[in-house]
Amino acid sequence: MSNNKVQPRIMPGFMELLPEDQIAFNRMFDTIRRVYERYGFLPLDTATIELSEVLLAKAGGETEKQIYRFQKGDTDMALRFDLTVPLARYVAQHAGELAFPFKRYQMSKVFRGERPQKGRFREFYQCDIDVIGVDSLDIVYDAEMPAVIYNVFKELAFGAFTIRMNNRKVLNGFFSALGYADKIGDILRTIDKLEKIGREAVEKELGEFGVAEADIAKILSFLAIRGENDAVIEALRAQDVDNELYRAGVEELATVVAYLRRFGVEESAFIIDLTIARGLDYYTGTVFETMLNDYPSMGSICSGGRYDSLAGYYTDQKLPGIGISIGLTRLFYQLKENGLVPPSQASLARCLVIPMGEAQMDAALAAATTIRGAGIPADVYYQSKGMKQKMKYAAKIGVPYAAIIGEDEANAGTVMLKDMNTGEQRAVFVAELPDAVR
Amino acid sequence: MSNNKVQPRIMPGFMELLPEDQIAFNRMFDTIRRVYERYGFLPLDTATIELSEVLLAKAGGETEKQIYRFQKGDTDMALRFDLTVPLARYVAQHAGELAFPFKRYQMSKVFRGERPQKGRFREFYQCDIDVIGVDSLDIVYDAEMPAVIYNVFKELAFGAFTIRMNNRKVLNGFFSALGYADKIGDILRTIDKLEKIGREAVEKELGEFGVAEADIAKILSFLAIRGENDAVIEALRAQDVDNELYRAGVEELATVVAYLRRFGVEESAFIIDLTIARGLDYYTGTVFETMLNDYPSMGSICSGGRYDSLAGYYTDQKLPGIGISIGLTRLFYQLKENGLVPPSQASLARCLVIPMGEAQMDAALAAATTIRGAGIPADVYYQSKGMKQKMKYAAKIGVPYAAIIGEDEANAGTVMLKDMNTGEQRAVFVAELPDAVR
Repeated sequence: MSNNKVQPRIMPGFMELLPEDQIAFNRMFDTIRRVYERYGFLPLDTATIELSEVLLAKAGGETEKQIYRFQKGDTDMALRFDLTVPLARYVAQHAGELAFPFKRYQMSKVFRGERPQKGRFREFYQCDIDVIGVDSLDIVYDAEMPAVIYNVFKELAFGAFTIRMNNRKVLNGFFSALGYADKIGDILRTIDKLEKIGREAVEKELGEFGVAEADIAKILSFLAIRGENDAVIEALRAQDVDNELYRAGVEELATVVAYLRRFGVEESAFIIDLTIARGLDYYTGTVFETMLNDYPSMGSICSGGRYDSLAGYYTDQKLPGIGISIGLTRLFYQLKENGLVPPSQASLARCLVIPMGEAQMDAALAAATTIRGAGIPADVYYQSKGMKQKMKYAAKIGVPYAAIIGEDEANAGTVMLKDMNTGEQRAVFVAELPDAVR
Repeated sequence: MSNNKVQPRIMPGFMELLPEDQIAFNRMFDTIRRVYERYGFLPLDTATIELSEVLLAKAGGETEKQIYRFQKGDTDMALRFDLTVPLARYVAQHAGELAFPFKRYQMSKVFRGERPQKGRFREFYQCDIDVIGVDSLDIVYDAEMPAVIYNVFKELAFGAFTIRMNNRKVLNGFFSALGYADKIGDILRTIDKLEKIGREAVEKELGEFGVAEADIAKILSFLAIRGENDAVIEALRAQDVDNELYRAGVEELATVVAYLRRFGVEESAFIIDLTIARGLDYYTGTVFETMLNDYPSMGSICSGGRYDSLAGYYTDQKLPGIGISIGLTRLFYQLKENGLVPPSQASLARCLVIPMGEAQMDAALAAATTIRGAGIPADVYYQSKGMKQKMKYAAKIGVPYAAIIGEDEANAGTVMLKDMNTGEQRAVFVAELPDAVR
């Protein structure tokens, strides 16, 4: 490369794919979108750049540090760092024009300038669904969300997965009853680390927060409640916890479990897990995480929950909702690392039509047009190269079929159709090509 | 609104849509993508943020002023302002891993901080296709591009359109022969304004550039050549222009016209127009514009052309290509302004299932699951409101069917299916719902 060239490169923490991976990525993207739409979620596509004043109304701490924020002229603007704040702003802005409950999906890139590390991205797709009500939102939606996610991961077919759910009222009520209402934040954050740092470290940390030893035992035995969903619910009902919030939370869990069955979600795919708390402050009821059973190290691949107030920074209207998010860029990266992304061809075409020479170009175009007319992607190799190079190209893009047209084929209205996997060749009439390559 | 609220709003020049428009927009987006894929173009999704050094290797002038550029830490970065520069960078970076000719599509947002005005956007979708060769790229691609565009606009079905084409070699050769080789830029830019400012103003401006009066007449009579494509080609061949580039350009035009017919493009949809020059400096052969016949004021809705060197700023490799771009955000806005976007419902669901009471929730879920099982989007109204409000919601989202389930229906395994357009109601078995609402 000569000295005056700029080295072509992108920044660390940004994902760009080669065609075969992009095709696999898009297949996942399209599957998620299709399921979201099948459940009646509406598309939304908010602005990538927003006014900092609006976007950061609620933010602080880490978010503010990570955000891409800049001036252009006199305007202070920033790139969205999630899809929830833009949703809140959009709903507050257009409340009069939307039908509630408002069910929307958005599958867009968000931007966070965090220190790049393996599997962490600065620009990544989130695939969110949320349902927003005015004043109230029925509990059935708490079951519809995991039902949608269940269908998404069924169709993505990356193996067995488990949706783990909990209810913040259960946790909040339980800890209030023990007299730790003011320490719930600390306690939940510590408990959130149970799997990561182990029971002993959690006990120690809880002690440091002033949790009495007797209570530590109670807390940990409570959190150890495991089993079939109905058994867990019975165990929760049987607990000696004198707190209304707790009781309400347990009944919500019971209701969601009952509805999940009616939504046709397999019992093996969801489980009550009292250790699930979710970090974010605004969850107030049902919370979810989703794990691939055989790849626990991936962590949660889809999380969310119920919140009481979506857009309190923009409007006085009470807008309760429930939402769930798949971080698709990170998920794709992890699946790939674990060898779970099936190899894709580097072409969307089912067939590459190859004229042997210039004289067969007409026949080649006619063949391609016939295939495309049936809605099947096809390509033609137009470059005037030798047959060897033409076949090399077909092999490189991994197209399933090559339709070779020489003088004889052109005269007979046929192609020599080569199955690129088996190497078998046979003459096929052009009119029969769509069926032959489908 | 209380005083401590932030007013929810976005910046001028950014497009956000209500659900009914977003659905219509996505329909266009999906149509374009489907046609692109049918012709064998591969998906690409480059980073939104790039290093300024890389992104601006070639830029200057207006582009540099309009770009969103900022620092984060020590890094100077910017948002992409088109999809061509990222393609050039990507191809130069991954040349060893790609199969050539490399056919890619990218349909992504680009960002330009220009002064916002009616119909101009700072953040907008471009839908690009390009084919890149190494060292050479066959002329058939010059016909495939407009053939793809022809199929896109056929399927979008916004009425009659015309693809106007020209060849830069014809223009460059013609003007060189007259001795204006060094003024081609000025002359072409002036000619580009022919429709906008009229013949007289163009004559005056050309005079100011030092074009002799006799040549002005020659130039304008040359550019006035019109008619059937074959007649225009014959007229161009008959011109007394002693210039090889000119002759080569005319034969390229003739070849492209011949191939367009073989691609099945209707003769009425493409026309040679010698006044088409395209502003960009890097076009070297075939150039295109596309107009809606009945809406000339929209200007070109899809433009592009052939270039000799895609990535000269990044690599010494010769990468000729041809590309074409649809500015979808602007096009959607213009179609909408002209009443050409057919009204869409504010729901993707074909049917809203409405349980009359809590007791019919099971039956409602079963009905929705049946419809969704056939791949048809459906929704359920879960909120415990009165029937009047439930039906109001159905009307507001414009769903074609409502499936109402009371006690009788639940017992009989039926729904009362209401056609929301005609108001007609009839009992339908749940198993027959998919066919009834499809």
